[in-house]
Amino acid sequence: MSRERLIYMPLGGAGEIGMNAYVYGYGAPGAERLILVDLGVTFPEMDGTPGVDLIMPDMSWLIERKDRLEAVFITHAHEDHVGGLAHFAHALGAPVHARAFTANIARGKLAEYGLAPEIVQVAGPWPQMITAGPFSVAFLPVSHSIPESAGLVIDSPAGRVVHSGDFKIDPTPIVGEAFDPALWAEVARGGVRALVCDSTNVFSPEPGRSEAGLATEIEALVAGAGGMVIATTFASNVARLKTLAEAGSRAGRSIVLFGRAMRRMIEAAVETGVLTEFPPTISAEEALELPREQVMLLATGSQGERRAASAQLARGKYRGITLEEGDLFLFSSRTIPGNERDVIRIMNGLSEKGVEVVDDDSGRYHVSGHANRPDLERVHQIVQPGIVIPMHGEHRHLREHVRLAEAGGFAAALAVNGTMLELGEGGAKTVDYVETGRSYLDGSVLIGALDGVVRDRIRMALNGHVTLTLILDERDAMLGDPWCETMGLADAGISRKPLVEVLEAEIARQVARADRKILADDDGLRDMLQRHLRQKAQNEIGKKPEVTVIISRMR
Amino acid sequence: MSRERLIYMPLGGAGEIGMNAYVYGYGAPGAERLILVDLGVTFPEMDGTPGVDLIMPDMSWLIERKDRLEAVFITHAHEDHVGGLAHFAHALGAPVHARAFTANIARGKLAEYGLAPEIVQVAGPWPQMITAGPFSVAFLPVSHSIPESAGLVIDSPAGRVVHSGDFKIDPTPIVGEAFDPALWAEVARGGVRALVCDSTNVFSPEPGRSEAGLATEIEALVAGAGGMVIATTFASNVARLKTLAEAGSRAGRSIVLFGRAMRRMIEAAVETGVLTEFPPTISAEEALELPREQVMLLATGSQGERRAASAQLARGKYRGITLEEGDLFLFSSRTIPGNERDVIRIMNGLSEKGVEVVDDDSGRYHVSGHANRPDLERVHQIVQPGIVIPMHGEHRHLREHVRLAEAGGFAAALAVNGTMLELGEGGAKTVDYVETGRSYLDGSVLIGALDGVVRDRIRMALNGHVTLTLILDERDAMLGDPWCETMGLADAGISRKPLVEVLEAEIARQVARADRKILADDDGLRDMLQRHLRQKAQNEIGKKPEVTVIISRMR
Repeated sequence: MSRERLIYMPLGGAGEIGMNAYVYGYGAPGAERLILVDLGVTFPEMDGTPGVDLIMPDMSWLIERKDRLEAVFITHAHEDHVGGLAHFAHALGAPVHARAFTANIARGKLAEYGLAPEIVQVAGPWPQMITAGPFSVAFLPVSHSIPESAGLVIDSPAGRVVHSGDFKIDPTPIVGEAFDPALWAEVARGGVRALVCDSTNVFSPEPGRSEAGLATEIEALVAGAGGMVIATTFASNVARLKTLAEAGSRAGRSIVLFGRAMRRMIEAAVETGVLTEFPPTISAEEALELPREQVMLLATGSQGERRAASAQLARGKYRGITLEEGDLFLFSSRTIPGNERDVIRIMNGLSEKGVEVVDDDSGRYHVSGHANRPDLERVHQIVQPGIVIPMHGEHRHLREHVRLAEAGGFAAALAVNGTMLELGEGGAKTVDYVETGRSYLDGSVLIGALDGVVRDRIRMALNGHVTLTLILDERDAMLGDPWCETMGLADAGISRKPLVEVLEAEIARQVARADRKILADDDGLRDMLQRHLRQKAQNEIGKKPEVTVIISRMR
Repeated sequence: MSRERLIYMPLGGAGEIGMNAYVYGYGAPGAERLILVDLGVTFPEMDGTPGVDLIMPDMSWLIERKDRLEAVFITHAHEDHVGGLAHFAHALGAPVHARAFTANIARGKLAEYGLAPEIVQVAGPWPQMITAGPFSVAFLPVSHSIPESAGLVIDSPAGRVVHSGDFKIDPTPIVGEAFDPALWAEVARGGVRALVCDSTNVFSPEPGRSEAGLATEIEALVAGAGGMVIATTFASNVARLKTLAEAGSRAGRSIVLFGRAMRRMIEAAVETGVLTEFPPTISAEEALELPREQVMLLATGSQGERRAASAQLARGKYRGITLEEGDLFLFSSRTIPGNERDVIRIMNGLSEKGVEVVDDDSGRYHVSGHANRPDLERVHQIVQPGIVIPMHGEHRHLREHVRLAEAGGFAAALAVNGTMLELGEGGAKTVDYVETGRSYLDGSVLIGALDGVVRDRIRMALNGHVTLTLILDERDAMLGDPWCETMGLADAGISRKPLVEVLEAEIARQVARADRKILADDDGLRDMLQRHLRQKAQNEIGKKPEVTVIISRMR
């Protein structure tokens, strides 16, 4: 019988921020029993994924081995950790474990897709252990920017792994459990073979600040405001929503929650008991009856999302409310790199209305949900792992985290998506590379990132499109004239004649010139016409469009 | 005879950063003689302007009044100030004035487009005045991030306007003229009716730092490097290139210039005498013969441009040179908002190669070319204008700059693109609003932003495209089957049958069902089929594609 081993392999989240999916396994090589930690998504952009609805890790490796999958564990309810669950739950067929708040959100998502919510089982925190094949797994409460985040204590016959999840060190997180160094020390006492650890903020040199530290600044800001106050943050940052709402409430303002996601999160937090005190809220209609200085809106859309409440307020009105001169708009959030343009668009829209905009440039109105560099060092020291394996980061974050760990005297391994590490007694070694990638949810269909679908869309967006139709009779002679229709192209170029006429004349000329062999061959004729059409367009308008040639033969 | 007046109207650059174009006029209302200050471009993005090559202000207002245009003045050679010149020089037909370095660059651009370089005349600095109709204009040297930047002193019968251009306060700018408060005071002595002033850095609270202050830090960094050193900055930042090259040279490294734009800028600076000392450079081939630690590359592409040298080095090799573990890559630049994703892509590419990346997070390796908030206040105080008119900024920048000026005791006016201000003795008043907008250079054609061309491209990118062809005989009966071709769509949806077959069957069904009136009416038939095809696609794949329907009738 072959030697058994403990393996770790990220399928998503290592080498990118987003779509987390980490596999652990224990057993004989190739026959390990598996668990999956998190199943997240990331969001498309016009740049590289136009028209796509969601981006998910390619789970085919795991789906092909679903008979070996014991369970799925979800560390917290952020989309990049739970957003893929509804799309793969059926194909994976394993039970899912999460803490109550996370389970509440996950079940809601499953229900939206017509899946049975009971797939998700509610787990208590450490020291409760859940058995999953050769593994015993416990949820270790951590503080983050959403309620009931957890790290995982993963025990196997080969020893213990601590999977940090997304976490920060916060002694006073407002909602949820504080960072508890004694608890981490207790978990680590018997020795930890590997610490698989969040890398997001490895480049942030200062120790992280506490959520509680914001209250004073936010209260002062809100208390000093004259008109309506609007604040935006992540819908899932329940602690921040509480801080903001309490600041408004203390300033004599009634609170309105704007945005479905925000109401859903507050509801889940109340249902699961993680949020016990939250100021009473009123509806938009009720707010319209009040003087502006007695209203505070909490709005979704801190990242500039165009359909969210903040963007709609910046453009015009939302649920009857229009912002105006004298109002104050607070971004209690950080702009995620890549979202700057959309956020700035909102700021300028607000500026045009005369609304005062306060963002987090000063650092007074937002704290991050991730452990900064010194916080990571502190956790390494508490856990004293045999090896540090950075996760949840782009390549540069993972690399820097490896260096940080090594500088602290720990072994460390850089494992990007698809790298299978064996976590042995003597350290980690790479035992396999698995092909990984991305799946796109496109409308209602899952497509592969390399299927060419999105590539064709990008080409049409860059080059425009021409449809050319041609009808040939039974002797391969043209019936009527060729016909062109364009989409996304200038009407006319240097000749100042309509582009379609220029192209049709060129095609007619080329067909007249073509020899019988070409005319009889659909593929050859199509290629020839496409080439001439693109060249003619290049001469006329300076662009080579995408071309669909349709040859109909009357027989 | 009607009262004469002095007017100011931005056509671009006020309410956005980029594509600067400012009109001044003096004369009877509606018959003012005009001058134009700057004629810049801005750059397209996949988000909103896919496939577009350049974005320029809509100059039609001025072109329609070209008989009243006396001259064009270019303050400096950045693309957002000079990039539109070659595209409109012919249509505007006026002489262009610029200082020597700017003229050198502008002439090069005109030549590329087959235009006569002599359109651009070289001007000396203040106190030399250029007469342009009722105006006398002088170039006031300012420091910025490109050689020979200038503000403009614009005299008219109604008094003096100071147009700041892009500027910073730098007593030791390395290349070009230092900020000279005595010169500004001299210019302002007789009274300044209006200061039209750069707003870019109005949100930066600290006084700006000097270019010269970077040398020590950069030298220390380069001196401490082991492998090859690569530094990127804007190609036009000749002072920075000099600082970087000298740091390399002092550390015993030979300098290689990577990127056409960078070589062009250095060449222009040498030709026009603004750059007198620059370390000798070697070619890439020569660099390949040297040990890595004796080479320093200066590379274009600090904003992540995919075809520039930096991006190519991050992806693979450039001119035979491959980066490797132990090399150091310095971003001596700030990432312009919106470019974060592209810059981060390069950083991760370098991280994968094991290259050490140093960016400007610490503020040690870059200074801005624009005046910060306290610097703006200082200039207001020196110039003591009748009114401050912020320019070169998004709406939020202009608004904040107005507030800053007012807080300092000055009148101020917020004038976005298209706002025509009369600059009277008693202050500024809005006398007209002109329709402004954007023109796109698309391939070789100028198209309007609202022509719908780009909108169609975005729709194809988001929704994919279907071509449907249908041939009807003289009695409106279908000949053969309908034919669909898709581009940018999944091959199959929920039925798992090929999407085109599903769509073709649907169309056949709808044609069979259609009444004679519809079948005889091309437009009605097209609309009906398009509607059914989109609905069927929605059911099948969850997307409603763009559709081109081509109906051929055999008669």
